[in-house]
Amino acid sequence: MHKQNSPIFLGLLLSICTVTAAAEKAEHFSRADLAAATTLRERAFADATAYQLVESLTTEVGPRAAGSPGDKAGVAWALREMQRLGFANVRAVEAIVPHWERGEAEFAVLAPFPQTMPTLALGGSIGTGSEGIDADAVIVRDLAALAALPAGAVKDKIVFFSNRMERTRDGAGYMKAVPVRASGPSAAAALGAVGVVIRSISTSDSRFPHTGTTRYTITAPRIPALAISNPDADALVRQFESGKPVRLRIRSSSRDLPQVRSANVVGEIPGTDRASEIVILGAHLDSWDPGVGALDDGAGVAIMMGVAKLIKELDVKPRRTIRVVLFANEEFGTSGSLAYLAANEAQVANHVLGFEADFGAGPVWRLASRVDPAQLPVVDQIFRALAPLKLVRGNNTALGGADLDALSKRGMPIIEPGLDGTTYFDVHHTANDTLAQVDPKALRQSVAAFAVSVWLGAQYSGSWERVTTDKPPRR
Amino acid sequence: MHKQNSPIFLGLLLSICTVTAAAEKAEHFSRADLAAATTLRERAFADATAYQLVESLTTEVGPRAAGSPGDKAGVAWALREMQRLGFANVRAVEAIVPHWERGEAEFAVLAPFPQTMPTLALGGSIGTGSEGIDADAVIVRDLAALAALPAGAVKDKIVFFSNRMERTRDGAGYMKAVPVRASGPSAAAALGAVGVVIRSISTSDSRFPHTGTTRYTITAPRIPALAISNPDADALVRQFESGKPVRLRIRSSSRDLPQVRSANVVGEIPGTDRASEIVILGAHLDSWDPGVGALDDGAGVAIMMGVAKLIKELDVKPRRTIRVVLFANEEFGTSGSLAYLAANEAQVANHVLGFEADFGAGPVWRLASRVDPAQLPVVDQIFRALAPLKLVRGNNTALGGADLDALSKRGMPIIEPGLDGTTYFDVHHTANDTLAQVDPKALRQSVAAFAVSVWLGAQYSGSWERVTTDKPPRR
Repeated sequence: MHKQNSPIFLGLLLSICTVTAAAEKAEHFSRADLAAATTLRERAFADATAYQLVESLTTEVGPRAAGSPGDKAGVAWALREMQRLGFANVRAVEAIVPHWERGEAEFAVLAPFPQTMPTLALGGSIGTGSEGIDADAVIVRDLAALAALPAGAVKDKIVFFSNRMERTRDGAGYMKAVPVRASGPSAAAALGAVGVVIRSISTSDSRFPHTGTTRYTITAPRIPALAISNPDADALVRQFESGKPVRLRIRSSSRDLPQVRSANVVGEIPGTDRASEIVILGAHLDSWDPGVGALDDGAGVAIMMGVAKLIKELDVKPRRTIRVVLFANEEFGTSGSLAYLAANEAQVANHVLGFEADFGAGPVWRLASRVDPAQLPVVDQIFRALAPLKLVRGNNTALGGADLDALSKRGMPIIEPGLDGTTYFDVHHTANDTLAQVDPKALRQSVAAFAVSVWLGAQYSGSWERVTTDKPPRR
Repeated sequence: MHKQNSPIFLGLLLSICTVTAAAEKAEHFSRADLAAATTLRERAFADATAYQLVESLTTEVGPRAAGSPGDKAGVAWALREMQRLGFANVRAVEAIVPHWERGEAEFAVLAPFPQTMPTLALGGSIGTGSEGIDADAVIVRDLAALAALPAGAVKDKIVFFSNRMERTRDGAGYMKAVPVRASGPSAAAALGAVGVVIRSISTSDSRFPHTGTTRYTITAPRIPALAISNPDADALVRQFESGKPVRLRIRSSSRDLPQVRSANVVGEIPGTDRASEIVILGAHLDSWDPGVGALDDGAGVAIMMGVAKLIKELDVKPRRTIRVVLFANEEFGTSGSLAYLAANEAQVANHVLGFEADFGAGPVWRLASRVDPAQLPVVDQIFRALAPLKLVRGNNTALGGADLDALSKRGMPIIEPGLDGTTYFDVHHTANDTLAQVDPKALRQSVAAFAVSVWLGAQYSGSWERVTTDKPPRR
């Protein structure tokens, strides 16, 4: 009691007073819960935990592609850090992951103007054999343009997809451009092509090729597929525009190795009166190999661990259990997410609300959701608690991230503090995904936005209803 | 005469009227010359030649390191383009150049936290042999810190130089930081080190290592030297800060090959009454190999050729001869420049004024000089003719570029339209030196600034005096 006159106490009192006006109308949260939300928001802006975590993960582990030694090191790091932060029930839960090894790759224009260009094999691409492939090339804009070519046009050719991704804040440009990477190789192979080169699904004008998974169909031959950066794609377009025949050479030693045991890493802040209800916080521990996975998804890992740490440090315990799940292998087929679902099949309905951070280091600019429409007023009140962050109020059609997609399709509501992706695809899936790309200030703001949303989601006085509408595909 | 009422004639008349007020005070230039300067400035902003040249050079030739196939292709390109633009006396003048081949390079931290990082061998660095070098590492900030270490401190070690280059507009930060690259390897070798890794002499936070020449002394053993990017240097510093011993692995297959014949490429706009006096416009045709040499020095090549093209298109001919010299091998010892001097030893005094563009694509922000102080009023009047470009008036201690340094040391005056280098060292000597980094608008402004300055330099009514003061070294 002798601390009643301390600055900390006065600050807290002031915070409580500040939110009193808003709390008068509160139906869904207690005044104490709203006051704690304010505390969380304020502490997030003063807390270095998230940045320290992404710094530690990128420095001490670095690249952690599924199945690689870094993958194992990432799991060990996460277990250690969750224990250090005092999370409960910290555990690694096995997940089988693919093990594709990049090897080396070369891309060269042989004619009309010989040049080599930096390249990355698409994730999962087969290799070329050590001799590589020399072939004449055909340029097409996208999948539709490929399909519109006359029969035989790409037979024994290398197909170059030239379409450029559009920069957007919410990732819409990526969703629009990425089918070329996912489906282009098999689509071209089905027409007789011997290789594919794509303009990187990237917004950067720097010379970083962009990797990411390609998905072979079972009906077309598997052919090698590489990506080149935007400035090199521009240069290759100019070579085609010369009107002279373009001949390319590709070589890649990438290959599939046997699957490997990895793990989702789980830690909790246990709930109290509604402890059996789980608010799940998802991010993924794996990364692509060329960078160190700072933005994708070190930042998401750091945001979710930072949020749980701040909630743990509150004087009050959450009503529902907050479970951080750092998924294995988001990048290459989300096998970590699928393993989680399989292991928790009996508890799907206990996952009452989901949050995912897999879109960089922020800042958060929007609050969207996918909840039962009757519960939109609850989201509205969370939005009001976030008022100092000046977010945009998004709609109720949030797709969420890839790792919670399966749970979301099974009816789990999602609240989505939207990370600003305007520059995310300058870095994502490239060698340039390093700590230098993480803005510490934006990261703190993101932790603040997630912490308030997660906390109130865990404290909601009613019950989160299942979402019964069909969910559209993420792509 | 029937064209007197044409829009072109009226535009010219208007231009002449516009400058009349300023020309009243003119002592050094005729009204017609000042009017032509205005015409050049205006046409430069409407002329796509320079951009088309750098586009063509980077697309059709690409990297053109001294001695490489691209070097030869660059010479052929320059001869063809100078002839196409109608320059006079177009010729290739032999210059012997070194031929260092980069090969491949690897850099890995073995302990405490294993990671590989992108790397580039420094230009001229010897290779490691295929087995590479594993050694414990010592971190030092710079050459002074290395010299201050106790005896034996770097014996059998790899030395990591950690100092970060400062961003400046005029390149001062580069001049301050670059001695580590030039002298660090031999300085460390003299103390017993077995290899050197430097933080790139670069201002970029992107993951592009930066190459450039290192200079072995004849007294120290030659040891391999690599550069890593700023974000990786930061990560390596953090590994040292862990307090645990740092062990590194370097491998490089770079090697020296026999010297090769290359050439300076020369073309002229012949003078009239002072035709024997040469105003030399220097840029360099070679580039480092990781990028395509768009900023370094495709832009300089393009600016100088664009300037000469605009002057050629004037109705009036220059009084002095304007000679564009695209030097071979600026990057690796300026042997092209030295060959030019040797071939022109008897005509050194005929080189009455020099301009060099080797600092990116602009814009020009300053007008500096190194002229006889009695002739500063001439530079002042050129500065006034550039008034619409809102430049800063620099001083009279311009160092000029590397290729004209020898002529400048022999007393040739220099006028220096200063290219803004604020972001130049984000790109310079990296794989990211591509056409995407050239701002077409800035390039046109640079052509305008150079065209006005070169033209007036060629028309000056007096005689350019030799500069008799000692010139300080460029580094």
